[in-house]
Amino acid sequence: MRNVETSQVETLAALLGPRHCLTAAEDMAPYAVDWRGTWRGQPLAVLKPGTVEEVSAAVAACAEAGIAVVPAGGRTGLCGAAVVSPGGPPAVVLSLERLNRIRDVDARDFSLVAEAGCVVQRVQEAAAEAGRLFPIAWGAQGSAQIGGMLSTNAGGIRTLRWGNARELVLGLEVVLPDGRVLNDLRRVRKDNSGYALRHLFLGAEGTLGVITAAALRLVPALQRVETAFLAVPSPDAALSLLGRMLGSGAEVIACELIQRICLEMVAEHGPHLRLPLPLESPWYVMVELAAAHPAVPVRAMLESALEAALEAGECTDAVLAENEAQRRDFWRIREDFPEFSRMAGPSIATDTAVPVSAVPEFLARVEAALAARWPEGRMVAIGHAGDGNIHVGLKAPPGVTREAWAARAGAADMVVNEIAMALGGSFSAEHGIGVSKLHVMRALKDKLALEMMRAIKQTLDPRGVMNPGKVLPEG
Amino acid sequence: MRNVETSQVETLAALLGPRHCLTAAEDMAPYAVDWRGTWRGQPLAVLKPGTVEEVSAAVAACAEAGIAVVPAGGRTGLCGAAVVSPGGPPAVVLSLERLNRIRDVDARDFSLVAEAGCVVQRVQEAAAEAGRLFPIAWGAQGSAQIGGMLSTNAGGIRTLRWGNARELVLGLEVVLPDGRVLNDLRRVRKDNSGYALRHLFLGAEGTLGVITAAALRLVPALQRVETAFLAVPSPDAALSLLGRMLGSGAEVIACELIQRICLEMVAEHGPHLRLPLPLESPWYVMVELAAAHPAVPVRAMLESALEAALEAGECTDAVLAENEAQRRDFWRIREDFPEFSRMAGPSIATDTAVPVSAVPEFLARVEAALAARWPEGRMVAIGHAGDGNIHVGLKAPPGVTREAWAARAGAADMVVNEIAMALGGSFSAEHGIGVSKLHVMRALKDKLALEMMRAIKQTLDPRGVMNPGKVLPEG
Repeated sequence: MRNVETSQVETLAALLGPRHCLTAAEDMAPYAVDWRGTWRGQPLAVLKPGTVEEVSAAVAACAEAGIAVVPAGGRTGLCGAAVVSPGGPPAVVLSLERLNRIRDVDARDFSLVAEAGCVVQRVQEAAAEAGRLFPIAWGAQGSAQIGGMLSTNAGGIRTLRWGNARELVLGLEVVLPDGRVLNDLRRVRKDNSGYALRHLFLGAEGTLGVITAAALRLVPALQRVETAFLAVPSPDAALSLLGRMLGSGAEVIACELIQRICLEMVAEHGPHLRLPLPLESPWYVMVELAAAHPAVPVRAMLESALEAALEAGECTDAVLAENEAQRRDFWRIREDFPEFSRMAGPSIATDTAVPVSAVPEFLARVEAALAARWPEGRMVAIGHAGDGNIHVGLKAPPGVTREAWAARAGAADMVVNEIAMALGGSFSAEHGIGVSKLHVMRALKDKLALEMMRAIKQTLDPRGVMNPGKVLPEG
Repeated sequence: MRNVETSQVETLAALLGPRHCLTAAEDMAPYAVDWRGTWRGQPLAVLKPGTVEEVSAAVAACAEAGIAVVPAGGRTGLCGAAVVSPGGPPAVVLSLERLNRIRDVDARDFSLVAEAGCVVQRVQEAAAEAGRLFPIAWGAQGSAQIGGMLSTNAGGIRTLRWGNARELVLGLEVVLPDGRVLNDLRRVRKDNSGYALRHLFLGAEGTLGVITAAALRLVPALQRVETAFLAVPSPDAALSLLGRMLGSGAEVIACELIQRICLEMVAEHGPHLRLPLPLESPWYVMVELAAAHPAVPVRAMLESALEAALEAGECTDAVLAENEAQRRDFWRIREDFPEFSRMAGPSIATDTAVPVSAVPEFLARVEAALAARWPEGRMVAIGHAGDGNIHVGLKAPPGVTREAWAARAGAADMVVNEIAMALGGSFSAEHGIGVSKLHVMRALKDKLALEMMRAIKQTLDPRGVMNPGKVLPEG
C-alpha cells in the first residue's frame, strides 16, 4: 500500500473506529474472494459502518480521496460484483453487515422496513411472526442480505407468482456516490411524482450508490400449499401443463423443470435423498400450488388439473407430497442440486430467460448447438419454467479438470446466450452481470441501451466511485 | 406563425403526409385544450404518425428544428401533461392515435404487445378473447390509450391487487428525444442485464421519450367475483375490515372508501341510481373479492369475513351484489361520482396517498385543517382505501363560482399535500404532475430527488425536446 493510501485508510479507521475498518490480510481474506473462489481482488480496507450516517461519511471520504467503494452484503452473488476488480482503482469493500436492524414491521400495512445487512431469512421470519409472508425465496436466503438481494434484483423459485426483488420494494434509502443520502423509505404504494429513481438502484449491483435500507412489501401468509413431483415427456408438455394450471386459475407459486440427468446426479451423489419417481422419464416438473385462504381447495384443484394433464399426455406420472416433511424432501432435491452438480464435475453455467412459450424451442436449439460443437459434453437443464428462466449447463466428460473444460468449452455460454437473445430473451435472467458477464454485455446488449446506461452512470457517479469495473463494460 | 416555423411544419407534413399533419385551427382545437378545459396551449401542428418509423422521423426532425414535442394519447389525463405549455418553446402535439395495433396476443405466455394508441378497453377485450385478464381498470379506460396509461403510470381501482401500470410492463419500445428507437419489446419476465431503463419512461409523462409500444403482462381471467356495499362507522373501522379480509387470505381486488356526502351527491344528482344502503352511516365501503379458479368459494369467504366484521363493529350494515347487474349498479355509483360531484359545484381536488395504516389519521388531520381554515367548505373524501390513495376535495358552498372558489380556497391542495407528506405519503398518487402540480413538486419534492431527476432529464434530453415545462419545475 502506498503511503498516501495508508493515511487515507487511517482517516476511514478514525471515522468508523478501528474495529470496523479491517486492514489485516487475514481479516480481509473472506472479502477478497467470491464464495465460489472464482473472483479475487484485494481491498485497501474492509469498512463496516454501523449506521447510514457512517456509510454516508465513509463514501464521502472515499470519493474525496479517489478511493473506489465496492458494496458487499452476504456475498452469495454468482457474478463477482462484491469483489474488488483487479486492475481497477484502489478500492475498499464496504460491508453492510452491521446495518442489520429491522426498523419496522406493520402487519396492517403489509410492509416491513429492513436495513441492507439483514439476512433475507430473518426478514422472512419477521414477516411470519407478524402473520405475513415475505415471498421471495431462493437457495442462498440463509446467507444473502437484503442489500444484495435488491442490488442484484434477485429472483428465485417464486418469481412466477410475486416477481423479482424489484417488485417487492416500496421505498429505498440510498447513499449516493458523493455521500449524500437519498431518503425515500416511504411505505406508500402509489407515488407518481416524477421519475422512478428507486428502479435505477434496484439491480444496479452497487454501481450507482449504496442501498442502506428498504421498505418492503409483504403479502398474506399462505394457509395451503400443495406440491407435486411429475414425470413429463417433454418441455413442451411441461409448458402445456403449466398453462393448464395457470389457465385454470389455480395459484401456481413455483414450477421447476428438471432434466433427467439432474436427478441421475442426485441419485449418484445424494443417496440420502429419495427420488419421488423412477428415472424413466426424460423430464420432470416440480409444481407448487398455494392459497392464502384456508377455504381454497388447493389439493382438489391440483388433483383435478393433474388428472386432466395425465389424460392429455402432458404428464405420465405424478406424486403429491402427503405432508410437510415430504414437501421439504421434494424441495431438497431441487435446492441441493447445485451441490450435486458440482460433485459431478465441472460445468459451463448459464442464466438465460426466454418468453415462457419459447422454452421448448430454446431447449431444442441449445441441445442441438451444444451437441454439434461439444459432442463430448452433456447438456444439463434445470430451472424456473414459469419464468422462462432455465439454467442450462454444459457438463465436462469424466476426468476433465475445471480449467481444461473452461478452456475447451468456455464459449458454450455465448452459444446459449445467443440462442436466448434470438428468441427475444435475456442473457442474464437473475444473477446479474458483475464481472463475469461483462463480455456478454459488450457483445449482446443493445448498443443504444448500453450507451444510455453509461450516460446515466456518468451523470450519477461522475468520479466513478461506485463499484468500478462492474456491470458496464468499458466503452 | 413565423415563416421559419411554417417551413418546418411543411417538412413535417411532407414526412407524414398532409392528412396526418394538422395545421388548421379547427382541426387542432381538440388538441389545444385538456378535457376538463383547464389547460390550454396552441401547437404549431398536430402530428399523427402511423408507424414507429414515422414517430422516429418526426421527433428527429423536430429536434433538428428546435421544435418541442408534446406526446398525446387519449388525453384523459388530469394534470395537463398532453397540452402544449404556454410560454414554452414552439411545439407540436404528437398524437399516437394511429399507432393502434395489437401486435401480438400470446395466451400461453400471458402476454400481449400493443401499440401506444390502443384504447385501454380494447386491450382488455383482446385479453378477454384469449381467456386472460388485463387487470388495470379505471373510469377513463374507454378513452385512455396505452401510451398515456404507461406515461402516467396509471392506477385505478385494482392497484391493490395488481399494482400500477408500471407493474404490468414486460418491455417497451421508445422513441428517444433525438429520434433513435430503443427497442426493448422482449416479453421476457426476468432480465438482470444492467439498469432498468424502462422504469425511467414509465410515469415520465413523455418528458424523456415517446413510448410507442409495450409488451404487457396478462393474468388469469377471473371466474368468481363478489362485491359488497358496506356501511362502516369510521375510516379506522374500514381499515380494520380491509385488514381482516386481506389477512384472511381472500383475494381483495378493490376496496373503495366513500364518505356519506358523496352518496348524498349521488342521491341528489343521479336519481336513476339506487343507493344500496340508507344514508345513515358516516362512511361506506365497496369491497370486491375475486378468484381465477371456479372452485374458490369466494361468496362464502366474503360472507364469513363480513359476519366477523359485523360482530367486531367494523361494519354496521352490508349488501352483497346478487348478480352481475347489481354489481354493475354498485360500481356505477363509484365510477359516475366525479360527474355528480361536478354537478354539485366546484371543488379543490387532491390526489394524495399515505401508507394504508395511516389513512384514518390522514383523514382526521385533513378534516380538522380544512374546517379550521375554510369552515364554509365541505370535505369530500372518496378513494382507494386499499392503496392509501383517498381523493380528498374541498367543496365550495352553494353559489360560489369555480374561479372564486379557486381564488379563496386554492391553497387547500397544499394543506392536504403537506399532511400526506408528513405521514410518509405522496402528493401525487396516481394522476402525475403535468403542469398542474409543478408548484407542489417545487415545494414538497425532496430536493435531492429533484436534482437527480433534472440531471437525468438533462442527460437523456439535453436539447429539451420532449414535453418541456412538464413534471420538473424550473430550477
